[in-house]
Amino acid sequence: MKLTISNLLVTLAVVSGISAGCNNNKSSGNRGALASSAAEKVYVAPGEHDEFYAFFSGGYSGNLTVYGLPSGRMFKEIPVFSQFPTNGYGYSEETKAMLNTSHGFIPWDDLHHPDISQTNGKLDGRWIFVNGNNTPRIARIDLSTFETEEIIEIPNSAGNHSSSFITENTEYVVAGTRFSVPVPQQDISISEYKGNFKGALSFISVAPETGKMDLKFQIMMPGFDYDLSHPGRGKSHGWFFFTTYNTEEANTLLEVNASQNDKDFIAAINWKKIEAYVNEGGGTKMPASYAHNEYDDSTHSATTTVKKEVLTIDPTEVPGAVFFLPTPKSPHGCDVDPTGQYIIGNGKLSADLTIHSFDKMIAAIEAEKFDGEAYGIPILNFEDVLAGQVKSGGLGPLHTEFDGKGNAYTTFFISSELVKWNVETREVIDRQPNYYSVGHVMIPGGNSAAPFGKYAVAMNKITKDRYLPTGPELEHSAQLFDISGDKMQLLLDFPTHGEPHYAAGIPAEILAPRSKKIYKLEDNKHEFAILSSEDSRVERQGNEVHVYMSMIRSHFTPDNIEGIKVGDKVYFHITNHEQDFDVPHGFAVIGANNAELLIMPGQTRTLVWEPKQVGVWPFYCTDFCSALHQEMQGYIRVSPKDSDIRLQWSLGE
Amino acid sequence: MKLTISNLLVTLAVVSGISAGCNNNKSSGNRGALASSAAEKVYVAPGEHDEFYAFFSGGYSGNLTVYGLPSGRMFKEIPVFSQFPTNGYGYSEETKAMLNTSHGFIPWDDLHHPDISQTNGKLDGRWIFVNGNNTPRIARIDLSTFETEEIIEIPNSAGNHSSSFITENTEYVVAGTRFSVPVPQQDISISEYKGNFKGALSFISVAPETGKMDLKFQIMMPGFDYDLSHPGRGKSHGWFFFTTYNTEEANTLLEVNASQNDKDFIAAINWKKIEAYVNEGGGTKMPASYAHNEYDDSTHSATTTVKKEVLTIDPTEVPGAVFFLPTPKSPHGCDVDPTGQYIIGNGKLSADLTIHSFDKMIAAIEAEKFDGEAYGIPILNFEDVLAGQVKSGGLGPLHTEFDGKGNAYTTFFISSELVKWNVETREVIDRQPNYYSVGHVMIPGGNSAAPFGKYAVAMNKITKDRYLPTGPELEHSAQLFDISGDKMQLLLDFPTHGEPHYAAGIPAEILAPRSKKIYKLEDNKHEFAILSSEDSRVERQGNEVHVYMSMIRSHFTPDNIEGIKVGDKVYFHITNHEQDFDVPHGFAVIGANNAELLIMPGQTRTLVWEPKQVGVWPFYCTDFCSALHQEMQGYIRVSPKDSDIRLQWSLGE
Repeated sequence: MKLTISNLLVTLAVVSGISAGCNNNKSSGNRGALASSAAEKVYVAPGEHDEFYAFFSGGYSGNLTVYGLPSGRMFKEIPVFSQFPTNGYGYSEETKAMLNTSHGFIPWDDLHHPDISQTNGKLDGRWIFVNGNNTPRIARIDLSTFETEEIIEIPNSAGNHSSSFITENTEYVVAGTRFSVPVPQQDISISEYKGNFKGALSFISVAPETGKMDLKFQIMMPGFDYDLSHPGRGKSHGWFFFTTYNTEEANTLLEVNASQNDKDFIAAINWKKIEAYVNEGGGTKMPASYAHNEYDDSTHSATTTVKKEVLTIDPTEVPGAVFFLPTPKSPHGCDVDPTGQYIIGNGKLSADLTIHSFDKMIAAIEAEKFDGEAYGIPILNFEDVLAGQVKSGGLGPLHTEFDGKGNAYTTFFISSELVKWNVETREVIDRQPNYYSVGHVMIPGGNSAAPFGKYAVAMNKITKDRYLPTGPELEHSAQLFDISGDKMQLLLDFPTHGEPHYAAGIPAEILAPRSKKIYKLEDNKHEFAILSSEDSRVERQGNEVHVYMSMIRSHFTPDNIEGIKVGDKVYFHITNHEQDFDVPHGFAVIGANNAELLIMPGQTRTLVWEPKQVGVWPFYCTDFCSALHQEMQGYIRVSPKDSDIRLQWSLGE
Repeated sequence: MKLTISNLLVTLAVVSGISAGCNNNKSSGNRGALASSAAEKVYVAPGEHDEFYAFFSGGYSGNLTVYGLPSGRMFKEIPVFSQFPTNGYGYSEETKAMLNTSHGFIPWDDLHHPDISQTNGKLDGRWIFVNGNNTPRIARIDLSTFETEEIIEIPNSAGNHSSSFITENTEYVVAGTRFSVPVPQQDISISEYKGNFKGALSFISVAPETGKMDLKFQIMMPGFDYDLSHPGRGKSHGWFFFTTYNTEEANTLLEVNASQNDKDFIAAINWKKIEAYVNEGGGTKMPASYAHNEYDDSTHSATTTVKKEVLTIDPTEVPGAVFFLPTPKSPHGCDVDPTGQYIIGNGKLSADLTIHSFDKMIAAIEAEKFDGEAYGIPILNFEDVLAGQVKSGGLGPLHTEFDGKGNAYTTFFISSELVKWNVETREVIDRQPNYYSVGHVMIPGGNSAAPFGKYAVAMNKITKDRYLPTGPELEHSAQLFDISGDKMQLLLDFPTHGEPHYAAGIPAEILAPRSKKIYKLEDNKHEFAILSSEDSRVERQGNEVHVYMSMIRSHFTPDNIEGIKVGDKVYFHITNHEQDFDVPHGFAVIGANNAELLIMPGQTRTLVWEPKQVGVWPFYCTDFCSALHQEMQGYIRVSPKDSDIRLQWSLGE
């Protein structure tokens, strides 16, 4: 094993984080007054509700998980980019289209950063946006149904990591490439990376009423890695800030070769200026191919549109729109305080935090005080834009959030701690160890103009001994802190499902009243829905058989079907006729090369079954729905390919 | 909507359960001394560990989830019958074979009943067995790795629900069909069900040292529905008990037609007698086709063997081996107390519980006192085998577990409550409401000769308002009770992932010390593993390209690959060279029509990628592994199909 910076840092992390962990274990082992107080603070008694929703990214699960705070209980996994056998997402005919891309159907992605829609810089709780890293996409989830409603692919991108963050009126959701690639793609040697690859920063407009997304323009930046981003707000509304690393433009062994420059950049983008340029006809349309998948609540179905063109912007052609702020040590997180004045660069190989001043940046731009340029983009002087530095005493800062009371909370991966500091004085106020190796921190509304500074959640990358062991593979771990006082108080460790890469929190009182309970049957416009069991039937079209079926406690209509043949493709179109809250039914048929259907009240779902063997095969309801749930079953007879058994169906005959 | 028994019962359940819920909400709203005590009882302080593992079935998620008690925190989801994009289970080349069946590859099933291996009637914590209902299968999970090691398909079955329960020395794991089917399958009318369909009860032997499963024999029972089962223990070791319903043999509208008989049966099977019969050459071999999937920890790979024969037993040919015990009202759960003396029939349409006496059953059998027969199987007199009834005051009993202190705990779905009663006196001691509509109850070891009677977990079928709302689809809910005193105390509501159909609990001190932390690299026998990065290479065989890759913090070897062409099928065989606990790496490549790989230390996994477009495409590590995780990336160049670019690979050159 080579001795690399990475090895060294790993060693440091293990030593600092885990030894701290052991100390804490001992102290928390004293179940005295402090533990009792923490117990009561996180306890949500049976029948009571949590104060906050927290939406945790599932990271490499590809999905979004919904937790309550302060209890740390997981209420739901919302399938977004990954197939979800539990309810048939990505398997049923209605939902498969959600996972279409220009590369074909993709059953997975790596979901990193949720961001809740805002109005005037405040969380409005209408939608939550998330990014797929691997095959670049942005998804929008409706926060009345808690279902994924839209996914748009991002062309010319790769490792869509500096995403998906929104502007203060949800004008745009922003997606930035992490890996630069040839644009357009071409067959060139990897060694020609430097100067030839591009980093696309994409601005996706969001329709104010419906939330519908449209890829408005892409800024074609130099071939750096774009790591994270945040919008300006308040006085800096109209700007967006992106961290870069690998400004060395290395194409191999990046752990060494991308850590050579003392400073990389934060890219400051005046998107309002670019928007004006675009609205005046600026930019270059280029051919592209990317999928736009939309789910319609009335048809209960998703459709894919393949888009064929994208508007690209050369930043050097829009003077005054794009600048680079030198920022030390491969900055990772790029965070903007609630006032919009400070832009924080979390230099991940550093002990210090770099705080840029928006006012100073504007002054330097207006004075045209530049320190050269990179690929035609002006570089500002580090000292001209610097508000100051936080001498943290920690190592490896990654991310910062805010409490709305003038304080910032920064995570340090290597020294494994959460550090609270004053945004104006930049003095450290408190520090608490994390177990182990913290990544993001989340304060509800912490990424808005109006944070709710009661709790902070640290999301840790290493779990080790924090819970009962479960073999080599462990869940990641979150830690909940009470931040209502001067000092942070650790309340609770709770495991997360998938990688809790980042999270977004919001007071329950904003979301809960808007939560939908059922789909109205009368509004069901699904092509194959039946609104009355009297319309149930089975129709043959060649070797395709369409079963129009209904379900209600506790039977299917029909529940006996004959006349199906080997070689048929059977479409079960099933409508749940319940109109009560929390009465889904499921549907499964033996031998299906498919997942189940889990069908909500008023909803229609379709499962394809291709029977391969002659016989009489059962189907049944998979969700325990009533005292006679076990009786909710039926049979389907499959005859030989050349059989002349006529199609027939019945219930109770 | 027809007025059916089901509708009526639903109404009752809603009225009783939910109005009780509202009352409780109010009282639990008083955060007084009781709530404080509950808070402290369930609080596991950061760094401390839970006292029990609880393995919850995911129901229609197809997977098994691991929780801690008393905290209610979920530590892991173990993929079993369903594809799991999070770690590539069912997507990677090594794991796809686990989901093979005689119907082909199946990405999902409905997992209901976990049971932990036993020695002398006590939990030994070596393995946990679970059933797949829809396409009948039994899986074995190793409790040192917490990974699925083996799945065996069950032929001649359908709706494999009365499964997977084990005998007291894990001699057998038992699987019973819920839906009867033609055996062998044939093209007959569904209306010919009665008298022609069969219900197979399968006994799968478990090798004492390795746990390997083999389908030893199937008993071909009459065409009833076989709902649940439990082994005899202690004095009744050697017997197995199965509930039946639909002894009416209805084939349509079962919610009405299968509720006609006042009594159905519990089938008592003397499996030792049948085993002896089999060992003497008894039974009939019949052709069958079923998959046996085995995962090998040393090759890190699964293989499928298709078995072609099964030994069937006609119960009428083994006198003294099979009897029917009349049991009222469509019994659901079939539970045996820790002494093995009492067999409890939970008549789901009844207010009362039926307690059969093993001693009385044996006496009646020996006296040959029968009340007729069904398809040649002797029926015992109800009164002759009855130990007594529990006049519960509840409605709709489903399942019973035991605390090892002489008490039983029965769930009532319709009246939505948990009722504690004395096994010997059959007097009700306590009752607590459940929110809402409880299914199973679990006491750690509650299904063994030696329960750990400290906690009971009620698993509820309806959630409604118990947590913050998440749209129409909700997680199910569990409720934790302290049962250490005379009266049960409700401590905690916690949501479960998937349907918490049933669960099995075990003290942490039995499992935790045996939990594996890493796979030893030196023991890795994977065909495509490389144990040193110096062996990394790329080889072409026609249009198949095999990449032998290694990963360690924080780089891949190689990280630049050229010479791949459109139309190639690229196999990334990746070995994780870490040998520290909790340092997995992930692997993803843009545009793959596949999930990611999540690779544990010492493990090898393979992802197939079929590039469709010319270009330079990135791959990266998906699990935040070090301070330079973001630098853990590489590029692969894809040239046109007819390109003559030579295959080359490198790191740091």
